Amino acid sequence: METIEILGLVAATLTTSSFVPQVYKTWKEKSTKDISLTMYLVFFTGTMLWLYYGFVHRSAPIVFANGVTGLLVAFILVLKLKYR
Amino acid sequence: METIEILGLVAATLTTSSFVPQVYKTWKEKSTKDISLTMYLVFFTGTMLWLYYGFVHRSAPIVFANGVTGLLVAFILVLKLKYR
Repeated sequence: METIEILGLVAATLTTSSFVPQVYKTWKEKSTKDISLTMYLVFFTGTMLWLYYGFVHRSAPIVFANGVTGLLVAFILVLKLKYR
Repeated sequence: METIEILGLVAATLTTSSFVPQVYKTWKEKSTKDISLTMYLVFFTGTMLWLYYGFVHRSAPIVFANGVTGLLVAFILVLKLKYR
């Protein structure tokens, strides 16, 4: 695999996994006042469109990255609505 | 332009612009306690790698989306460090 493609996988892994610390912090502290609900609603919608885009293009990295991101973002949304 | 490509542009616009409401909320309320510093550091690093990936592939959408996202995320990082 070309170096630049490996770099793309690293980039996708970072932007996807970056939501894990936010899920952990919100889960632990049960406080979401400073988190923008609008941001996560819009981001989630965009992630679902990327997921569909990935299916149409049969692109495993796009499907995988946005599937995982979508789950993490959905989890933050649930916590945000629960602990407004 | 194919419909699926238009959908990809809409997805990119949503995931990029989603950070604007977070920047606005943080700028207005000057409170970042609930925001994960680790998330934004990791996300920013990933965005910069995507930016380089886009330059190498001469992909305007990837460069544009990650350039704008990088700026917005950097702004949130500055606010996070300022109003810890």
